[in-house]
Amino acid sequence: MQIDIAKPILDKNDRAAQRNRERLIEHGVFVVDLLASPGAGKTSTILATIEALRDTYRIAVIEGDIASTVDSEKIKEQDIPAVQVNTGGACHLESEMIRRALDALDLDELDLIIIENVGNLVCPTDFYLGEDLKVMILSVPEGDDKPLKYPGIFQVASAVILNKVDTMPVFDFNENAFREAVGQLNPTAPIFPIAATKGQGVQAWTEWLSAQVEARRAEAAE
Amino acid sequence: MQIDIAKPILDKNDRAAQRNRERLIEHGVFVVDLLASPGAGKTSTILATIEALRDTYRIAVIEGDIASTVDSEKIKEQDIPAVQVNTGGACHLESEMIRRALDALDLDELDLIIIENVGNLVCPTDFYLGEDLKVMILSVPEGDDKPLKYPGIFQVASAVILNKVDTMPVFDFNENAFREAVGQLNPTAPIFPIAATKGQGVQAWTEWLSAQVEARRAEAAE
Repeated sequence: MQIDIAKPILDKNDRAAQRNRERLIEHGVFVVDLLASPGAGKTSTILATIEALRDTYRIAVIEGDIASTVDSEKIKEQDIPAVQVNTGGACHLESEMIRRALDALDLDELDLIIIENVGNLVCPTDFYLGEDLKVMILSVPEGDDKPLKYPGIFQVASAVILNKVDTMPVFDFNENAFREAVGQLNPTAPIFPIAATKGQGVQAWTEWLSAQVEARRAEAAE
Repeated sequence: MQIDIAKPILDKNDRAAQRNRERLIEHGVFVVDLLASPGAGKTSTILATIEALRDTYRIAVIEGDIASTVDSEKIKEQDIPAVQVNTGGACHLESEMIRRALDALDLDELDLIIIENVGNLVCPTDFYLGEDLKVMILSVPEGDDKPLKYPGIFQVASAVILNKVDTMPVFDFNENAFREAVGQLNPTAPIFPIAATKGQGVQAWTEWLSAQVEARRAEAAE
């Protein structure tokens, strides 16, 4: 029964996602949907990404949260356009929320939009928003066993960021076991170990992200 | 429309929860539903709770996960009955899943069941399973701003465990700000700072939990 109920919501979401997609292509805007648990460091990673790429791309951020505006305020402090979407209880963003957020942005003045989804390793996985790719962040304190417990999110991610690697000595995190488990679920996804608040490892991640943006541009130019 | 769709599921869940409740009362079993993000330390907290209370109460654990049996295996290593519930994608446990888990346990041989819900700060909040109380765990690495972003879970919790306090020096966690934010959402919930893997602070938490079990027994005896 749950499947019957969920299906029409997903279809409706997918249709709105497709409209978002067409609109983004029309304006040449690349979109990353960033997924992670609460407190894995989504906002810190976005801030580090902005710092690395703000001279190359015109960036905006869509901040998804159940409640509050703390994250979008941090982004705005960097003079980067940020739209806060409060889901009011829902555990993920939906395409229609993104449509309204896109309405609030000047797409002709943007190259890259980073969506910070609601902190959750489950719900956002199934919702296509019209983005180019989903990237997930796991933080070291969450533990190396998370791919076993939340396989879905590791499978939909085009890349996996391992954040807070500077705290590796404090936690009992087996990076080899983690890499092996991720590799079994998603053999092509690169893993970027970073410490977002310290800038450590951010270059490899942002170089990869830039390469995705450029590849999409080259495709569009053909 | 989402409200219309969600309502029948919740009603059905509540009816099954009520049946679980009656069954648990009949057998005199106290149930705690433990909620937290992935990696906040639910299993470690359960292991520490078992160690502290196993001479006082006959304990069993119901382990909720999207996939895998890693957690229930850890519990079984302690010679404690454990039932693994794999939700196969769902981001929370439902009453019917708990009903089946209760079928797998000998309730006459138990005093206390700890349910480890799926790692998620959102979905499990709205689902009553027939438990006596919900308790939530936040871990220090997740950050002190979580009550602002996920208010619902802090409101339904009868107590808040703050885990991994031994890593406080590594993270920029403002305990006073956290206590104040929790206090505004839920003035009566006690906060227990612990470091589950080191046993630190566990006594205050388990004494409080024992007091809840005894209070319920006294009520039942009246």
